[in-house]
Amino acid sequence: MKDAAQAGRPRPPLLLNNIGTLLTLQGGRDPRRGRELGNLNVIANAAVLCRDGKIATAGPEREVLKHAKELGADPEIESFDCKRGTVMPGFVDSHTHPVFAAPRLLDFEKRIQGASYQQIAETGGGIRSSVESVRSASEVDLAQGVLAAFRHMQSSGTTTAEAKSGYGLTTEAELKSLRAIRQAAGEWPGTVVSTLLGAHVVPPEFAEKPHEYVKLVCEQMIPRVASDKLADFVDVFCERGAFTLPQTELIFDAAREHGLGVRAHVCQFSPQELSRLKRFSPASFDHLDCLSDQDLKSLAQQDTVATLLPGASYFLAHSYPPARRLIEAGAAVALATDYNPGTSPTTSMPMILSMACTQMKMTPAESISAATINGAHALRLGGSKGSIEAGKDADLALFAVSDYRELCYWFGGNSCSAVVLNGILMKN
Amino acid sequence: MKDAAQAGRPRPPLLLNNIGTLLTLQGGRDPRRGRELGNLNVIANAAVLCRDGKIATAGPEREVLKHAKELGADPEIESFDCKRGTVMPGFVDSHTHPVFAAPRLLDFEKRIQGASYQQIAETGGGIRSSVESVRSASEVDLAQGVLAAFRHMQSSGTTTAEAKSGYGLTTEAELKSLRAIRQAAGEWPGTVVSTLLGAHVVPPEFAEKPHEYVKLVCEQMIPRVASDKLADFVDVFCERGAFTLPQTELIFDAAREHGLGVRAHVCQFSPQELSRLKRFSPASFDHLDCLSDQDLKSLAQQDTVATLLPGASYFLAHSYPPARRLIEAGAAVALATDYNPGTSPTTSMPMILSMACTQMKMTPAESISAATINGAHALRLGGSKGSIEAGKDADLALFAVSDYRELCYWFGGNSCSAVVLNGILMKN
Repeated sequence: MKDAAQAGRPRPPLLLNNIGTLLTLQGGRDPRRGRELGNLNVIANAAVLCRDGKIATAGPEREVLKHAKELGADPEIESFDCKRGTVMPGFVDSHTHPVFAAPRLLDFEKRIQGASYQQIAETGGGIRSSVESVRSASEVDLAQGVLAAFRHMQSSGTTTAEAKSGYGLTTEAELKSLRAIRQAAGEWPGTVVSTLLGAHVVPPEFAEKPHEYVKLVCEQMIPRVASDKLADFVDVFCERGAFTLPQTELIFDAAREHGLGVRAHVCQFSPQELSRLKRFSPASFDHLDCLSDQDLKSLAQQDTVATLLPGASYFLAHSYPPARRLIEAGAAVALATDYNPGTSPTTSMPMILSMACTQMKMTPAESISAATINGAHALRLGGSKGSIEAGKDADLALFAVSDYRELCYWFGGNSCSAVVLNGILMKN
Repeated sequence: MKDAAQAGRPRPPLLLNNIGTLLTLQGGRDPRRGRELGNLNVIANAAVLCRDGKIATAGPEREVLKHAKELGADPEIESFDCKRGTVMPGFVDSHTHPVFAAPRLLDFEKRIQGASYQQIAETGGGIRSSVESVRSASEVDLAQGVLAAFRHMQSSGTTTAEAKSGYGLTTEAELKSLRAIRQAAGEWPGTVVSTLLGAHVVPPEFAEKPHEYVKLVCEQMIPRVASDKLADFVDVFCERGAFTLPQTELIFDAAREHGLGVRAHVCQFSPQELSRLKRFSPASFDHLDCLSDQDLKSLAQQDTVATLLPGASYFLAHSYPPARRLIEAGAAVALATDYNPGTSPTTSMPMILSMACTQMKMTPAESISAATINGAHALRLGGSKGSIEAGKDADLALFAVSDYRELCYWFGGNSCSAVVLNGILMKN
């Protein structure tokens, strides 16, 4: 339900009051590297005042109400009673693949019968099986699916989402996918960061000449995407059966040349020598299930965020990424859904938090910071997203729980009752 | 939202039409032992007619509409458009512990720090930590919590729930818990089966004299529960640190003497010699994570249903029960949530189906039958619940998916859009 203000009238200030527990995630050590996990900055009996899409004040209710009064006692101020629930920054889901046409039910059944990810890919399933339907789909239909995904994400507390192309694998189909993301983003009040993932897998028609496909990505896709301003980042699936490390370097070089940021899928099924990519300062390395000790050390010293995707580990029944080792080594850890039709069909960040706690032994406080402020850093949005601080974007999520740990404890359900996206209140 | 008919007027027949996919689960081998898993009986373009709380007809839409007309063209017939979604029998959640006063967040955090179930129990956490708050809670407050749980279950497609006491552990507190279940059941249109679990754990005041507690269960709790008709079954947590096999036999003897059915928590953390309990014909053995080969064989030849609870395996990050071995040996397998505050804080049967498929390698068809018709058999309700057949109770669930496999494939969300409970339509 959108608030009346969206109908065209200037939006009145929004006051969230009667908050039982407020997690601001304010404070921390290094604005570029992401926060030390676990500093939630918990305030009881709180309120948040939003104005012009930004946080005006957040803190103890008495102080915020005083500030609201000082603002000039705007008669139009909109109040929302949070009924003693828990308010925190909206989730930043920093890794999703929402541009697809159909669920991959055949892969799902094959896996139950014992086929591995690699076996499914080798027999025509996997990423390639999503390609045909995306190539033939209309941009409008794809946009509709992406918008539905954003709305599902929002229903469980996500206010910022990264969205990748990657099931088109021709210049036209990748551009169409990115335009579908742009179209859906225009209809959703949340924030969307777009990523070109032309290098998701080598398409069948280039099976015998992968270097030509890499050339296509570098010389056609990246320049077009940059000139049309269709993406903020370029991503590469750097893995056995997808793209090699030298190919990844070529693609990153082209991205840098065209002013685009870079990020990569790495170490999902096999270790890679990540230090070779250090010179590109990737915003994030994602997956990291098979991280070597050497890369672990190197990652802990980099600005690059380590984005963990337990949804895929769960769905594939693989081992989970080494969250504790990363945290203890000092790496900046983020959590995301990896929403995609092959290996992680979920849009729920609370489900990801449950997995982080139960399977990866992250504490509730660590997992909440990984899913908010560190997700923001993984998208280079640490200055405007991921914490509740005056001047930052008004992106909030309200949960009907009295203790923040319950966000991670209950699983399979949804306690999110409202979100604020860039100052716009949407109730569930 | 309840339909208008609940306001007192006689309820009109209910027609669910425009069903894209109907799973009736009709047919199978042995009405007592549960169905061979996986026979969903899928019908495209279907409808279901309900009358007086029962299924009148279900099948191809044309036939059902013809039958509806023959009924006398009742002008009051209520139609509900299923919008091409999937309709199946409502889930039968045959193992839940909904009578508690608070989530166990301390246990949750201790486990993240590395403590085992047994270590948490030994240091005052675990089941015992729920006891104090249940003993001091009012019956009304407990009933409110139970009713909230039933409504959460319903929101994801459950129409029949088993509910156990077991956090009171005095005669009065166990009776209070069962009365709370009865009170909540009276306010919920679904079906509830009550179970006395006085033998959940030995309470602290009997720590040095467990045999006296067993005597209390046998000589006070069971007779009182039977005479007040407060439960259908007696359950025992037969496990290291809880109750021994000989104690379980004593309790089962008392239950049988008072005309109550029996079921047991077995082999969750250690194997037990289940054949010793065969003579009691338990309705179900639940958990079975540590099942020996010998017990597996014995179970395959019994009427006793094997109820698997992957939610607890997930939450404790233990290994999952051996579903494939049980199915291949010919055992009747059911799936349930094990909803409880210590080891499985979920009310979502779709989440359990996801785990059954991804972690235990059950097929979608197997897991759907385990969660419906075999759950009904685990409660000895196979004659009235768990499949869509003329004369059975009108318990249905509608999901906004076009392929039934999607019920198991998407996870962490909820695609249930309506349920019918004993003929009463409730929309989500």
